[in-house]
Amino acid sequence: MRLATLDNGTKDGRLIVVSPDATHYALAPVETLQAALEDWDRAAPALAAIASFPEQLDLARLLAPLPRAWQWLDGSVYPSHGALMDKVLGITPEKTNAPLMYQGVSDTFHAPTADVPMADEELGIDFEGEFGVVTRAVPMGTGAERAGDYIALVVQINDWSLRKLAGPEMKTGFGWIQAKPPCGMAPFAVTPDELGEHWRAHRPALHLDVQWNGHPFGHAYGEPMAYGFHELVAHGARTRTLVAGTVIGSGTVSNENFREVGSSCIAERRGIEIVDEGAPRTDFMRFGDTVRMEARLPDGRAPFGALEQKVVKA
Amino acid sequence: MRLATLDNGTKDGRLIVVSPDATHYALAPVETLQAALEDWDRAAPALAAIASFPEQLDLARLLAPLPRAWQWLDGSVYPSHGALMDKVLGITPEKTNAPLMYQGVSDTFHAPTADVPMADEELGIDFEGEFGVVTRAVPMGTGAERAGDYIALVVQINDWSLRKLAGPEMKTGFGWIQAKPPCGMAPFAVTPDELGEHWRAHRPALHLDVQWNGHPFGHAYGEPMAYGFHELVAHGARTRTLVAGTVIGSGTVSNENFREVGSSCIAERRGIEIVDEGAPRTDFMRFGDTVRMEARLPDGRAPFGALEQKVVKA
Repeated sequence: MRLATLDNGTKDGRLIVVSPDATHYALAPVETLQAALEDWDRAAPALAAIASFPEQLDLARLLAPLPRAWQWLDGSVYPSHGALMDKVLGITPEKTNAPLMYQGVSDTFHAPTADVPMADEELGIDFEGEFGVVTRAVPMGTGAERAGDYIALVVQINDWSLRKLAGPEMKTGFGWIQAKPPCGMAPFAVTPDELGEHWRAHRPALHLDVQWNGHPFGHAYGEPMAYGFHELVAHGARTRTLVAGTVIGSGTVSNENFREVGSSCIAERRGIEIVDEGAPRTDFMRFGDTVRMEARLPDGRAPFGALEQKVVKA
Repeated sequence: MRLATLDNGTKDGRLIVVSPDATHYALAPVETLQAALEDWDRAAPALAAIASFPEQLDLARLLAPLPRAWQWLDGSVYPSHGALMDKVLGITPEKTNAPLMYQGVSDTFHAPTADVPMADEELGIDFEGEFGVVTRAVPMGTGAERAGDYIALVVQINDWSLRKLAGPEMKTGFGWIQAKPPCGMAPFAVTPDELGEHWRAHRPALHLDVQWNGHPFGHAYGEPMAYGFHELVAHGARTRTLVAGTVIGSGTVSNENFREVGSSCIAERRGIEIVDEGAPRTDFMRFGDTVRMEARLPDGRAPFGALEQKVVKA
């Protein structure tokens, strides 16, 4: 099942169910995705039962599947990315046996084709291609062995980042505020079963195609997460109840062979250049630049649709 | 003007206007505080015009004034607290010319008399008495010189903390997830004018009385913030638009003479013991413990009412 949210002028939009070929839709029997997630046991079967899609889909009218959420917890669980970033930033985070995770702004997830306003071109504007999950309500203390049951949907996210602010904020120990403006979300949220055998151990076994200004930039594989999404959910829920509609991210998709497959953010490419050549060659984004992200199954299908955004001056 | 939120079985409760002597109330013409904040220019005068308070107030029926918010950004701007904590945690955060700030869980602010469920007594359960503000929508890039205009309300907060998780999470650079379960909020949100001359340069010139299990624990003065709330709002809004109803906190209220006036959290008292005696004597909270926080004007009035909570096993 694939869900999306139509812009109807409200903050939460109007939930729709999308046809298998992503050309048509039906209005959902529940008004918003947030409402559906709060009553998922009843809503999910009702949504899945829809088999007739009378309306033609216009991608430009879609908001993020969840246009705002009560909570956004973003992990960083691709070891190849973490190790490189630590090296380049000159940071030696204390090693723990837990995933890295921060809480980011969740009152806005930009629409998949929205222009994204940024305060200042000199702040190191960067994209971060990620996968994410959206949960039902998760009781405090839920262990990883049960946490997967609370994953309602899988999504694809662009975690916009301002790199010149990221290092200094990280060094405060308080995490990121200014370095992390709102994310974008690809048009379709899908149930894990929609990914079939490509949802493995709560990990997305898809490639994430990233294009910057129309040029191929990355093609990293989603599966090699050091922690699966079930473990990220359990980490987030250890001392707090997660409300329905909590969004949890994987962090930038990255592979050990990033020199071959490319990267899902500019910072990683610059890191490789610093390591290999002593200095970064690639600049960050400028106003007017676009980034397109599309996760693909081996047969070429893009279950989340394309997230294509342009950076503009706020 | 003092506002509060009645428990009516909904997540956002029912907004009420409280009488000057805090014994009676009137239903507000706007259903929820969130809705009022989204239309503050119209809602504030309508709320302030209410002069008749027909209903008797039962404090036990109150939720937090804002029972959930789209965003909670907590500063740490009392220098005496920061310096001591750095010393005790063995952390040397890079000095910046910006306030420290993290984003915490905002989907729940516990009611002022609610029992607060905690996962585990061994995690170093601690309170943190703070002041906070609730904003209208703040445009991205709003400078400190104008940011004060967006402060709608002042609130009093208990930022519950789990100290044994705080140091390790801080050392990751990603900030706190598990160390910061949801906060509590005192019953009344007040407009800055309600504090009169005790709202100075966007700082609360009140003492915060803290009692732990009925014994006086702290009596710190709110004014010596290194950054005023206008600067905290501007810091939060540098690269993101703040939605209406964003809550921004001061961090633990603390004074240089904490040995005389006491502290607003146990960690600070333990820090003093470590510095003075080589080891902490004071233990953290146990299940069944209570903490009461009440900010007082010089004439003894408590504009936010009392926040009194009991820690219970989740």
